[in-house]
Amino acid sequence: MPNKVKDAWAQGRAVVNGWLAIPNGYSAEVMAQAGFDSLTVDMQHGVQDYLSAVSCFQGMQPHGVTPMVRVPWNEPGIIGKVLDAGAMGVICPMVNTAEQAQQLVSACRYPPEGTRSFGPIRAGIYGEAGSYFETANRDIAVIPMIETKQALDNLEAILDVPGIDGIYVGPSDLGLSLGMAPKLDREEPEILKIYERLLKECGKRDIAVGLHNASGAYAKKMIGMGFKLTTILNDSGLMLQGAKAQIAALRG
Amino acid sequence: MPNKVKDAWAQGRAVVNGWLAIPNGYSAEVMAQAGFDSLTVDMQHGVQDYLSAVSCFQGMQPHGVTPMVRVPWNEPGIIGKVLDAGAMGVICPMVNTAEQAQQLVSACRYPPEGTRSFGPIRAGIYGEAGSYFETANRDIAVIPMIETKQALDNLEAILDVPGIDGIYVGPSDLGLSLGMAPKLDREEPEILKIYERLLKECGKRDIAVGLHNASGAYAKKMIGMGFKLTTILNDSGLMLQGAKAQIAALRG
Amino acid sequence: MPNKVKDAWAQGRAVVNGWLAIPNGYSAEVMAQAGFDSLTVDMQHGVQDYLSAVSCFQGMQPHGVTPMVRVPWNEPGIIGKVLDAGAMGVICPMVNTAEQAQQLVSACRYPPEGTRSFGPIRAGIYGEAGSYFETANRDIAVIPMIETKQALDNLEAILDVPGIDGIYVGPSDLGLSLGMAPKLDREEPEILKIYERLLKECGKRDIAVGLHNASGAYAKKMIGMGFKLTTILNDSGLMLQGAKAQIAALRG
Amino acid sequence: MPNKVKDAWAQGRAVVNGWLAIPNGYSAEVMAQAGFDSLTVDMQHGVQDYLSAVSCFQGMQPHGVTPMVRVPWNEPGIIGKVLDAGAMGVICPMVNTAEQAQQLVSACRYPPEGTRSFGPIRAGIYGEAGSYFETANRDIAVIPMIETKQALDNLEAILDVPGIDGIYVGPSDLGLSLGMAPKLDREEPEILKIYERLLKECGKRDIAVGLHNASGAYAKKMIGMGFKLTTILNDSGLMLQGAKAQIAALRG
Amino acid sequence: MPNKVKDAWAQGRAVVNGWLAIPNGYSAEVMAQAGFDSLTVDMQHGVQDYLSAVSCFQGMQPHGVTPMVRVPWNEPGIIGKVLDAGAMGVICPMVNTAEQAQQLVSACRYPPEGTRSFGPIRAGIYGEAGSYFETANRDIAVIPMIETKQALDNLEAILDVPGIDGIYVGPSDLGLSLGMAPKLDREEPEILKIYERLLKECGKRDIAVGLHNASGAYAKKMIGMGFKLTTILNDSGLMLQGAKAQIAALRG
Amino acid sequence: MPNKVKDAWAQGRAVVNGWLAIPNGYSAEVMAQAGFDSLTVDMQHGVQDYLSAVSCFQGMQPHGVTPMVRVPWNEPGIIGKVLDAGAMGVICPMVNTAEQAQQLVSACRYPPEGTRSFGPIRAGIYGEAGSYFETANRDIAVIPMIETKQALDNLEAILDVPGIDGIYVGPSDLGLSLGMAPKLDREEPEILKIYERLLKECGKRDIAVGLHNASGAYAKKMIGMGFKLTTILNDSGLMLQGAKAQIAALRG
Repeated sequence: MPNKVKDAWAQGRAVVNGWLAIPNGYSAEVMAQAGFDSLTVDMQHGVQDYLSAVSCFQGMQPHGVTPMVRVPWNEPGIIGKVLDAGAMGVICPMVNTAEQAQQLVSACRYPPEGTRSFGPIRAGIYGEAGSYFETANRDIAVIPMIETKQALDNLEAILDVPGIDGIYVGPSDLGLSLGMAPKLDREEPEILKIYERLLKECGKRDIAVGLHNASGAYAKKMIGMGFKLTTILNDSGLMLQGAKAQIAALRG
Repeated sequence: MPNKVKDAWAQGRAVVNGWLAIPNGYSAEVMAQAGFDSLTVDMQHGVQDYLSAVSCFQGMQPHGVTPMVRVPWNEPGIIGKVLDAGAMGVICPMVNTAEQAQQLVSACRYPPEGTRSFGPIRAGIYGEAGSYFETANRDIAVIPMIETKQALDNLEAILDVPGIDGIYVGPSDLGLSLGMAPKLDREEPEILKIYERLLKECGKRDIAVGLHNASGAYAKKMIGMGFKLTTILNDSGLMLQGAKAQIAALRG
Repeated sequence: MPNKVKDAWAQGRAVVNGWLAIPNGYSAEVMAQAGFDSLTVDMQHGVQDYLSAVSCFQGMQPHGVTPMVRVPWNEPGIIGKVLDAGAMGVICPMVNTAEQAQQLVSACRYPPEGTRSFGPIRAGIYGEAGSYFETANRDIAVIPMIETKQALDNLEAILDVPGIDGIYVGPSDLGLSLGMAPKLDREEPEILKIYERLLKECGKRDIAVGLHNASGAYAKKMIGMGFKLTTILNDSGLMLQGAKAQIAALRG
Repeated sequence: MPNKVKDAWAQGRAVVNGWLAIPNGYSAEVMAQAGFDSLTVDMQHGVQDYLSAVSCFQGMQPHGVTPMVRVPWNEPGIIGKVLDAGAMGVICPMVNTAEQAQQLVSACRYPPEGTRSFGPIRAGIYGEAGSYFETANRDIAVIPMIETKQALDNLEAILDVPGIDGIYVGPSDLGLSLGMAPKLDREEPEILKIYERLLKECGKRDIAVGLHNASGAYAKKMIGMGFKLTTILNDSGLMLQGAKAQIAALRG
Repeated sequence: MPNKVKDAWAQGRAVVNGWLAIPNGYSAEVMAQAGFDSLTVDMQHGVQDYLSAVSCFQGMQPHGVTPMVRVPWNEPGIIGKVLDAGAMGVICPMVNTAEQAQQLVSACRYPPEGTRSFGPIRAGIYGEAGSYFETANRDIAVIPMIETKQALDNLEAILDVPGIDGIYVGPSDLGLSLGMAPKLDREEPEILKIYERLLKECGKRDIAVGLHNASGAYAKKMIGMGFKLTTILNDSGLMLQGAKAQIAALRG
Repeated sequence: MPNKVKDAWAQGRAVVNGWLAIPNGYSAEVMAQAGFDSLTVDMQHGVQDYLSAVSCFQGMQPHGVTPMVRVPWNEPGIIGKVLDAGAMGVICPMVNTAEQAQQLVSACRYPPEGTRSFGPIRAGIYGEAGSYFETANRDIAVIPMIETKQALDNLEAILDVPGIDGIYVGPSDLGLSLGMAPKLDREEPEILKIYERLLKECGKRDIAVGLHNASGAYAKKMIGMGFKLTTILNDSGLMLQGAKAQIAALRG
């Protein structure tokens, strides 16, 4: 199973990512037909748990989108479980130090690069028999979230940890950490300056930078700025937006 | 618990109805905040069963939308179950004869108006203690679907069955039955002529007419024509539409 | 697996039955430790479906209570499924004619006594290997509900149908059918007279009579009158009653 | 999405079918990798309901096996639901008369060949957009079960109903109906004679004949005899057999 | 959405709290109608996980009880998830040091008071749009459990941690830690002396003290002693108690 | 409820253990009838979570097999939950130091031997009322996994931690940690030498040694070598193996 996210990054292209908060395999298979390159099951803020993530993976698998997970926390138990279930990328919230980044990488990689335990119950079905073990360390994207002042203070040390493929920015938490209100699609100059720094430091190390967005229009602009993974809202947010628009057309 | 559908009809207003195909209480509570008057769990073509309908009802209840169900078939067992679960309206597919309409009404009403069995396990929690039994026969909307040539042939007899509050038109099945392709938002003159006949015959009997639509714009036009219940797509369709629009904005 | 209900009836004893409306295996296993002889999963008015009934059966099995189901309707598909899942008794609502009673018996018995299809997926695990088929027709209790004026009009014909082990009375529906309010623990003379007739006609034919009750005190009285299966409320009703009593003790 | 069952039949080849009793998408995806041409979710005797069938379909979809369902009963509501969910074949128990066979075909085909209602919520995602409606009537396999004496008495009339693609034989029920014990892999001469008659009459009408088996060895013999769809046990039976064999190897 | 627990505490009143061990939205909505001020989903010892807690919250929401959770452990991932799901209070087991108390507070509060990540997927639907973020830090009750000798040794340091609204006492674990048997409704003088100390130290700091009880009568006495949050058993315990009482009435 | 694992060890016998990856109570009850002494729900690499483990426990309970869990990680929250749910043994992955082993023991034992919190919601139903607390510390098997080079380096210190009943070897992870490929049923001399060392060191301390195997034949040999707990594949692996064998018999 190719990892469209890492393939795109290898070719310098940006990835359009969807975000799943609805814990259901059917809604996942509908999202998988919308045109996203990858879909991320949000186990942190979404209404998701491990078994609902498995259902979402099953729903999206025939449609060729790359399955990823945002884990609820930097904890090796759940990271191992979602990888075994077939996640090809792990987005991890609140990685604020190099040590935490190192723990994340370790949980995602088999020895000798890490300490992941072997037992890819669903992931093992990708590709030819036996091939998963040989390719997993190379194919799985490890993506810590940089979203606090502390993480910015430790940025270079975090990015220097071997094995990081990308970082992901949560604009709400980043703002909160800096004393601003939580929101997406930010335009504050100090935030954009941070984005520039992230892009520059990551660029030096061949690390992709991702961003959570509220609209396709803003995401497009950010791709222009250099972001390589852009998410737009989530499944339930798109549904609510669509419903409100049609009701407005009806009632307006 | 007021029935917003029957209240609107009593006042001559049209109802904007949402349609739930995703079997999940969380997606239902998101839909319940979009501005719909009522939400219908689609147990016929949606990915829904009885317990998922209960979850959807639980999700929508705090938000004041009126819960309805499209049952999978005109069968008294499932009709009783969804009413006991709290449905304030029952849309029933493929009602083609007066006898079938009579069976539907009978399953929805307590004696002496019908043969519904008593045990409103969730519905009994609406309103003051004990009041559900006194008001259920009056408050619950019984809505057969008129969607075949056979039903049109039997139209007056069906509509003359006492206890029908509204009818609901499925444009795809209606077209199929008449030798046309299945689709929504139809403009064929022969279909519009049928709609006019339905509106006229129902108008005579104080029966509301509902229609399934693919867009708010078409639904608005149909309300202008006299329809009193308009649904726009369903939850997963609105989500897919929203996702495609944002991806197009990003990629375009 | 012995059927405690039929064993008690064979010995002239009355059975104390519990009623499960909560669709969960854990609550079922708690109820299974309260001291009931049998537990009935209420698929008609309870918040139950087929898979929740399976969970309830799994929860109660180690505790030695006899598993029964009230099916949602007199329909051979669901009757076959709950028997295959291990129900040792089937209570069927709204059996109003001898033909309906015959259909119920037929769905519950293997040929030549009926037309049940063979495939006892869970039921086959009871007892020694292979023994289920040999004993099922004899061990499973077939229990139509007599709860309408029509059923009373057809009483003798219904009871004469071979294969009926017991009948079950729903006091709410019986009252409704006779123009009275729906309630349990009834004291109206005309209702008690009906109960006497049921006990007498069933007594002639060695058929047990069951009754749904709201309290142990009333149920005790009814056992004295001759009833052989008494249910008290249901799981959620007992929970609500218990919670209110403790809150009253605290606040009073 | 090609229908491997109908394709094989068109080419005169026999199909190897698996049978799913475990209500879980993960076990379905494991079975989907064993080498079966098709997998049938057994909603009659299996521990399955509608939503578990959807999960099983999602699990098997990436692996290219053709999804089928044995419905619990010949009832249009559930037949429509499993087809909308993506079943490419419907095996229906206890079809004993031509009228019942006609009802089954009608529920499986869109007008004008039948009365199926349009709304292929998951099935519509197969193939190119819009193509499902055009191909469904042709691609879906309609397979009544012939498993009673009554069905044998009506055999020619049943097989003459237009729209039947295959029949399926349940050896346990067939035996029961003829006064024999319920079992698979039967060798009684009178049963084999019935099989010969079924193969001959179906052969005349280009209808395939399927059979439920307890072992690959017996199934192989039956393919030699002319059967075109052979199932071996079910998922949980294969698991139990495998577990016992390994335990025997360990303990023996 | 008002927090009835914190409102009562602000007014010096005691709260009557229910406890949910059954993982089901329906049983939760029944409990929500019994008269409790708040209901706590017990994810530590109850048969609950994250998605069952969401279902319980959905079930209780229309009935105006305040939703709380006892988390399984002092772990920021699950604390964030239940708050995002709408918990208005977090009871955390085994808080034995000031550092652990500080970690708990940090996980429950947005910056600058803590490090909670922003994304209130269900909680955001409370109140007017946008208002949740502004009120969450003030409205959510943070309630560490004091239930070990170590916690008593560190009591003042724990209570001095800013942001603690209440403490909760688990009498079984407290007893175990002191070498006594595990039980509720304790009367040992040394335990009552500890309760007095807790009430006194908390009283100094305007922190409420809660207690788990086995009966309304004992809880009433404890409210008299100064406790401000009293729980009585749990849902399944009340059900079992109610069932046994009715069976005793019947059999006695 | 007797612990067949500890009873066998006390008598010097080896235990045959099954392994559950399918998150379903029905497949668990089928496995429980195959002849295993114990069944372990694999929450680390299996498709399992807490509530599916509860379902599996409910499914196996009537059949007398001893319920165990492999927890996803050495974390006290989940260890407490599975013990409360009725696990009679805890297998814990990746125990690499004496400190980790001590944490595991502490989470599994009530004071004064550990720090487990009291609330055995399902486990309390085993045996006579009140007896669980008295016997739990003695009856529950604590089984750290020794599967890394680090663990081998710390072996004696780990085994000297009081309260360890057995160890469990994961051959894939052990191999990976030593620079070999992940696989079961290993024959490399250096691995067998490690096994000998484990058996010898554990033998000195009366600690049983368990091993994960791919076949009954290899497991038998290992029992001969001194292993006292042998697992063969898992439920889905046995199913896949069985399916492939039957298909081969059919097609070969």
